[in-house]
Amino acid sequence: MALAYDGAIQRLIDAFGRLPGIGPKGAQRIAFYMLSAPEDEARDLAEAIEEVKAKIRFCDICGNVCESSPCPVCADPRRDRSVICVVEEPKDVMSIERTREYHGLYHVLGGAINPMANVGPADLRIPGLLKRLEGDEVKEVIMALDPNIEGEATTSYLTQLLRPVGVKVTRLASGLPVGSDLEYADEITLGRALAGRREA
Amino acid sequence: MALAYDGAIQRLIDAFGRLPGIGPKGAQRIAFYMLSAPEDEARDLAEAIEEVKAKIRFCDICGNVCESSPCPVCADPRRDRSVICVVEEPKDVMSIERTREYHGLYHVLGGAINPMANVGPADLRIPGLLKRLEGDEVKEVIMALDPNIEGEATTSYLTQLLRPVGVKVTRLASGLPVGSDLEYADEITLGRALAGRREA
Repeated sequence: MALAYDGAIQRLIDAFGRLPGIGPKGAQRIAFYMLSAPEDEARDLAEAIEEVKAKIRFCDICGNVCESSPCPVCADPRRDRSVICVVEEPKDVMSIERTREYHGLYHVLGGAINPMANVGPADLRIPGLLKRLEGDEVKEVIMALDPNIEGEATTSYLTQLLRPVGVKVTRLASGLPVGSDLEYADEITLGRALAGRREA
Repeated sequence: MALAYDGAIQRLIDAFGRLPGIGPKGAQRIAFYMLSAPEDEARDLAEAIEEVKAKIRFCDICGNVCESSPCPVCADPRRDRSVICVVEEPKDVMSIERTREYHGLYHVLGGAINPMANVGPADLRIPGLLKRLEGDEVKEVIMALDPNIEGEATTSYLTQLLRPVGVKVTRLASGLPVGSDLEYADEITLGRALAGRREA
């Protein structure tokens, strides 16, 4: 009895199953979808994977992903060069860009300090950040790391590290998400919202 | 402001986002995973996609997916050639093989009758099934379609179609799933389980 699929299909299921967020059933579903998908849709995906590995690199200045370094944000003369927003991952840059509220530069650390996963300060793009603060151009560094244990630890570490540099270090406000319900807010978030209250 | 990712990444996110079961956030997560994944893992996936489109075909006899026709099941001399199990999709063959209870042949219809999706009997591999029943070799046809509206309709249609052929037509038992709870069974399933009761 055949208990695995014929060679090529099983290899495709296995390859999809290794991706984050795709389980064995999902991988099987996608593989059979690929099988019946138009030839060019399958080729598009295969080419997109190979293209991204061949073309994408990290910006030498901010560490964001880009096709040519410096990245479009670092190269844009209209951006405010006096503010740097520090984030963990390239996708966080996109989240902040979507607010259309920020016009400064970015610095992508490439993660957060996480002793459980063996990620220490030496694994992050911290020397590059310090180097960018050497001139007098940058007036403010905004910490925009994830509000979880690793992000908080990294924010504390960087805040202490940047204090002697003499630059203003700020962090994103904690509080109630817009559109949420007071009843369902956890007590830490509610406590932060209280502590950070503003005049109405 | 850049509101989409740099060319190649956005193309990869879009390509993953078109797959079933992957939303925009999941596609972004996978794309960034690909970016940091080892070179050969990305190449494996791209090659698996291209290989499956190049190599995989449908078995001329049963309609299952395979690399060479006839498929391994149809070509296996140890399989019982007097029974054909009719299923909707190639993945259903794998589900039945996993039970290790069935040793006959298969016939993959390629779907079920579904007027809402414009799938009629003419879109399924029904002529091939009738042709396989022409000799005297096949004694029984087991209907193993999904127990939903489309599957039931297709089972009824095929049962009527096969009656004049003179072959025994059976269907999978409906009843309570093993390990489930009587309290949570829906009334249709429970009704079927009652109607199909056996001596203990």
